[in-house]
Amino acid sequence: MSQARLIEIETDILAKNDRYAAANRARLAELGAFAVNLVSSPGSGKTTLLCRTIEALGAQPLAVIEGDQQTANDADRIRATGAQAVQVNTGKGCHLDGHMVGHAMEHLDIAPASLLFIENVGNLVCPAAFDLGEDCKVAILSVTEGEDKPLKYPDMFTAARLALLNKVDLAPHCDVDLDLYEANLTRVNPGLEVIRVSARTGEGMDRWLGWLQGRLAQKSNRAAAE
Amino acid sequence: MSQARLIEIETDILAKNDRYAAANRARLAELGAFAVNLVSSPGSGKTTLLCRTIEALGAQPLAVIEGDQQTANDADRIRATGAQAVQVNTGKGCHLDGHMVGHAMEHLDIAPASLLFIENVGNLVCPAAFDLGEDCKVAILSVTEGEDKPLKYPDMFTAARLALLNKVDLAPHCDVDLDLYEANLTRVNPGLEVIRVSARTGEGMDRWLGWLQGRLAQKSNRAAAE
Repeated sequence: MSQARLIEIETDILAKNDRYAAANRARLAELGAFAVNLVSSPGSGKTTLLCRTIEALGAQPLAVIEGDQQTANDADRIRATGAQAVQVNTGKGCHLDGHMVGHAMEHLDIAPASLLFIENVGNLVCPAAFDLGEDCKVAILSVTEGEDKPLKYPDMFTAARLALLNKVDLAPHCDVDLDLYEANLTRVNPGLEVIRVSARTGEGMDRWLGWLQGRLAQKSNRAAAE
Repeated sequence: MSQARLIEIETDILAKNDRYAAANRARLAELGAFAVNLVSSPGSGKTTLLCRTIEALGAQPLAVIEGDQQTANDADRIRATGAQAVQVNTGKGCHLDGHMVGHAMEHLDIAPASLLFIENVGNLVCPAAFDLGEDCKVAILSVTEGEDKPLKYPDMFTAARLALLNKVDLAPHCDVDLDLYEANLTRVNPGLEVIRVSARTGEGMDRWLGWLQGRLAQKSNRAAAE
């Protein structure tokens, strides 16, 4: 198969995805719901961070879509917090797409002015290319991954609006330079906000929650004004 | 595009890859060189482990192919050990393929009875599907990723012959159950060997080196006998 034909196929797949994503985005805009696409390597601590976030948000209406190749473990962990969650298994697939998320949304009760968390398949490459209709991508990195990762996998950090530098409680036990980690993130994407957090100790969680609530308020006010 | 057409395209791409991989494999068999495809999430410590491995192997002839979306950082780190290395940048690509590896091999001096390390793009999903002509895939996991990862990303651990459970020095600082981690690995692939290592403290490195040297001896003896 020629390179030109491969590019044509890729463009076709992405165009089809974008139509599904646009429909999801329109539905969320109507509701004034704010959707976050959580992207990271496997093992960055996304699910634990999400569980702590949901607990801290208390009575805030929200819903969760969980993406993994296999198992319903993550949706089970989310439901244990009391939140509603749908698990999507991608099988051989390496990312969620707009179609999968649209289907999952149909199985959730997404309230007006609520939060929708979409936890993508753990993969620092492929999910960068797929719009799901979210308001923004939030990249989660574990400090244990090392400060060079933003330079080696720049697409994801270019696509993200916020980076959560997670597991900062482990930093003293690793040979990691957190200032250089942050500098490399903003070198790849000068507009990227960075918050250092630890889902385990709670460090930085207030800043992350404040960020979320601020964005949700903007979105729901916009919907109310229209 | 229909699902059937997508499957046809995927089959086409994989068949083409397999032809390149077969050519690489034939070249390595002639030389009696043993090739390892190192696969993992980003940040599992592959490159550091490889640097310590090369240093410990001393005068053993070897060569390295480094795969990353961007930067030549990893090839630079390998060359600093004195070993020869070629960097492949995949750009938007999420894995190395047989064609890329064949090209890289042309730029290396692969000696008879030598080792070839291929460090794949950090991605626990896509590289599982692509044969590079290697003798085996070795999966590297950081203990910080959590013991549920083998169940959530089973393809990679089904494809691998050996799993190196790396950064065991961090285990006391994480909420991780190493016995359960190993049990989940062998649940997904009962034939998988597992070695606990720490590139930082040197723990387990002798077992890993012994494994490599044993496999290389088998391969080079087979080539000499033919």
